[in-house]
Amino acid sequence: MKLTAIEAEAMRRVADHALDLHADGKDIVFTAAIVKDGTILVQARNEVGATNDVSRHAEVVAMARVADILGTRDLSGCTLLASCQPCEMCLGAMRWAGIDRVVFGAQQEYVDDAFFRFPQLRITDFHRACNGAFAWQGGVEEHRIAHIYAPGAAT
Amino acid sequence: MKLTAIEAEAMRRVADHALDLHADGKDIVFTAAIVKDGTILVQARNEVGATNDVSRHAEVVAMARVADILGTRDLSGCTLLASCQPCEMCLGAMRWAGIDRVVFGAQQEYVDDAFFRFPQLRITDFHRACNGAFAWQGGVEEHRIAHIYAPGAAT
Repeated sequence: MKLTAIEAEAMRRVADHALDLHADGKDIVFTAAIVKDGTILVQARNEVGATNDVSRHAEVVAMARVADILGTRDLSGCTLLASCQPCEMCLGAMRWAGIDRVVFGAQQEYVDDAFFRFPQLRITDFHRACNGAFAWQGGVEEHRIAHIYAPGAAT
Repeated sequence: MKLTAIEAEAMRRVADHALDLHADGKDIVFTAAIVKDGTILVQARNEVGATNDVSRHAEVVAMARVADILGTRDLSGCTLLASCQPCEMCLGAMRWAGIDRVVFGAQQEYVDDAFFRFPQLRITDFHRACNGAFAWQGGVEEHRIAHIYAPGAAT
């Protein structure tokens, strides 16, 4: 899948955001953004720690914020961008929001298994299980951020 | 899997709750509860419509509330109960919360495909993909509530 210029710019910012937060030294931080019609509508980070709500992954936070901005939960026409391959929960939320385009940095093959809850299912399995209802591109800006999520990072 | 007495009671209430809301006539309503140590900690309903947040399925709402009550997002030792088989997003959230026991009413085989976003993946696939890290029992109180979620209900 070929990225648009604004998607490529959004992924640079998503990566910058993850690197900035990671440089602060504490947690492993996941970041996300949403693009629509040539505009980056939001950037977000994982807020699970801040809220105690396990659903507050960066992608879900971003989708909730865009729904507020647009006044609808139908986010069709949006692209979801994430620093790390979205987990199974986030892929589900993406599909509930009607998003059919997702771009991410670190790919499952190169990240810690702890960042997935059904690690033996791959994005190809999810793609097949909805008759290919979304398009995706992984590995974007991966060289800059893969070390944040690498095997062993979660322990 | 054999239900405990409190789990069976919680499922009766989850079904009652769904039937009550459905009787009000508007939407298809999904309900959930969480049990721990012989107590029903919360009952919840789908709040997607009220919040525009696609993640606010009844199960996710219930988990967020219990995390608030217990002061931790680690919900290990809890049982998640739902009127309809949890979707892929909710199964993911359940695993992020550390819940390894789930009980539900209407089973995927008998409900509208629209209630799943990767309908060709079944709960057995998710079970296998995490090396059987959770136990489940479907079909509880199903005879009372299956009609709410039956094929065609979503259209």
